[in-house]
Amino acid sequence: MDSTLTQGKTITCKAAVAWAAGEDLSIEDIQVAPPRAHEVRIRILYNGLCHTDAYTLSGKDPEGAFPVVLGHEGAGIVESIGTDVTNVKPGDAVVALYNPECKECKLCKSGKTNLCGKIRTTQGKGVMPDGTSRFSCRGKDLLHFMGCSTLSQYTVVADVSVVTVDPNAPLDRVCLLGCGITTGYGASVVTAGVEEGSSVAVFGAGCVGLSVVQGAVRNGAKRITVVDLNDSKKAWAERFGATDFLNPYSVKGMSLTDKLVEMTDGGYDYTFDCTGNVTVMRVALEAAHKGWGQSIIIGVAAAGQEIQTRPFQLVTGRVWKGCAFGGVKGRSQMGGLIQDYMDGKLKIDEFITHRKPLDGVNDGFRTMASGDCIRCVVDME
Amino acid sequence: MDSTLTQGKTITCKAAVAWAAGEDLSIEDIQVAPPRAHEVRIRILYNGLCHTDAYTLSGKDPEGAFPVVLGHEGAGIVESIGTDVTNVKPGDAVVALYNPECKECKLCKSGKTNLCGKIRTTQGKGVMPDGTSRFSCRGKDLLHFMGCSTLSQYTVVADVSVVTVDPNAPLDRVCLLGCGITTGYGASVVTAGVEEGSSVAVFGAGCVGLSVVQGAVRNGAKRITVVDLNDSKKAWAERFGATDFLNPYSVKGMSLTDKLVEMTDGGYDYTFDCTGNVTVMRVALEAAHKGWGQSIIIGVAAAGQEIQTRPFQLVTGRVWKGCAFGGVKGRSQMGGLIQDYMDGKLKIDEFITHRKPLDGVNDGFRTMASGDCIRCVVDME
Repeated sequence: MDSTLTQGKTITCKAAVAWAAGEDLSIEDIQVAPPRAHEVRIRILYNGLCHTDAYTLSGKDPEGAFPVVLGHEGAGIVESIGTDVTNVKPGDAVVALYNPECKECKLCKSGKTNLCGKIRTTQGKGVMPDGTSRFSCRGKDLLHFMGCSTLSQYTVVADVSVVTVDPNAPLDRVCLLGCGITTGYGASVVTAGVEEGSSVAVFGAGCVGLSVVQGAVRNGAKRITVVDLNDSKKAWAERFGATDFLNPYSVKGMSLTDKLVEMTDGGYDYTFDCTGNVTVMRVALEAAHKGWGQSIIIGVAAAGQEIQTRPFQLVTGRVWKGCAFGGVKGRSQMGGLIQDYMDGKLKIDEFITHRKPLDGVNDGFRTMASGDCIRCVVDME
Repeated sequence: MDSTLTQGKTITCKAAVAWAAGEDLSIEDIQVAPPRAHEVRIRILYNGLCHTDAYTLSGKDPEGAFPVVLGHEGAGIVESIGTDVTNVKPGDAVVALYNPECKECKLCKSGKTNLCGKIRTTQGKGVMPDGTSRFSCRGKDLLHFMGCSTLSQYTVVADVSVVTVDPNAPLDRVCLLGCGITTGYGASVVTAGVEEGSSVAVFGAGCVGLSVVQGAVRNGAKRITVVDLNDSKKAWAERFGATDFLNPYSVKGMSLTDKLVEMTDGGYDYTFDCTGNVTVMRVALEAAHKGWGQSIIIGVAAAGQEIQTRPFQLVTGRVWKGCAFGGVKGRSQMGGLIQDYMDGKLKIDEFITHRKPLDGVNDGFRTMASGDCIRCVVDME
């Protein structure tokens, strides 16, 4: 498609619109305004469905606002750019970044975190950095979501929220690097820095948990235990390199924590919560080894939920931490992940259990909830 | 005193005996049996009083058992040694270590923690590693405390629970390295590794908190805020190098956390709880800077108390950790601390606000509770 035909003009295209919490998404013709300064309009080709979309759609997210265009695991081609955009140009293959990287703010410049402060406030409110929306449908503005809104054939994002990728990379796969895989893999490799020969426990064997496993394998962990309530995840865990699988329902006569501590003569060197369940987060911490065990929270808890433990757990040397997007800096480090995938060092294809056309997006969400789905990729064409 | 006269014999001496929770200590003549294999009998000369002694004496410590000889911040001279003791000999000046270091167990050999597993179980039960006590009074066995029981003119400890010190070091001061000063200073320098130019908040300006401050000064922290409910601690904080003092009662119209975050444009790089209060621990965590702030729990919470926060605090990059004895390995690292003191790089004298004879020990505990006392050293002679 020749983007000079659409540049500077409003585009009408299909999008999955969430009109209200708890309702199915509705495929609508929406209007997507051209990008303003420091903004990029992307023709989205593929979008992975993530539990965070489902969480907001469910209405349980207190910060969820409607009507909105969901989606945050998307890849596509830059259609046009606003003024002052220097990092991408029309025709570039890109992945959208819900975790932006401006390279200028205090956080970006600290060298200590992948969080970026530049557009945090407006992104949280579902609008572009200038406080307005680029989406409308039947004369009504739609909100943006996580700075991405990739469940639309065209979206507009801030220039700090997009990264170019190798034009040879298959966008129907690397779109998953926009969230789940990077989140888990990064948590393992970047945030925890799993060490060779170490023991790792991963709670929850979805896309994120299995990505933690592959990061742990990459870093040479000796023992990798996956904990999940669904026995069908055992085969998945093994496929990604886990050495043990434990279903908490199978543990008799002792607590899950005690079982895990017993399995490893004192606990794990690294534990990861990929469930968002605060009770699991406590088990993960307390199953970490005294003196040095680190427990990393990746899952997003429901609103109002709090984690809890005896301070003695920390005084005796356990470390409780967490990360967003795996601690990975989207613009600086995505290229390396794509290269790893192209070199066969990072699995992506194996996560894709389902594909749906855009008008099958509700089916996709239902499949995801069934537990047999790791990732469902929506073909936006 | 010629220790060959007492070697191998039971010694009768004075000790402060805690017969029951909530009662004053009683100065008694007790019998101290000779050391067995891998045990050391020490003539204790000086003992610093610590809040942990007071906590156990109060009866609030669910693991506190009576009758017991308290005290764990003691220094003295080795009187005799049991068989197989190679690290100290009679006549050596020593400090007792409630946090032992065997250099042989999984924890000691890990290189990742100062915790030692060798005598943990028996120490927790108030007995020597062979399961028996060396103390008796009026025909009744007395329990040991924290592997030290230094509120006795003679005590017996495991060889892994004692370290020799420079014979020129004044024992009436360096006894404080047995707990409070090392705990705070180590938390700052070893556990947190406070960085040059960083910001530090310290909750609680007792011996431990002020030692955190001196560690932060040593490491070049730019801003050091001390938080304490007692305004008289402002002068103390400044004396040790704090740049700010904040009394939570003076904060109006916003929470203490918000105030601290505002004072530092986003929060502190390092925060330390030296209060043992779980509500303060939460404030300390949440006043740490997003993305990299570390909060270190040093204080010992009351039984059953739990810490709590939203997992979002960790997902956005704060790290919650803790330490015992500051993360310092007693036998490997005490020599360096003593040397620092001798070289004028580590303050100890400044902490000693009160001195008491052994029969003034109850006065000492009362003084400590008054808040005007940083450390009270008991002269055991």
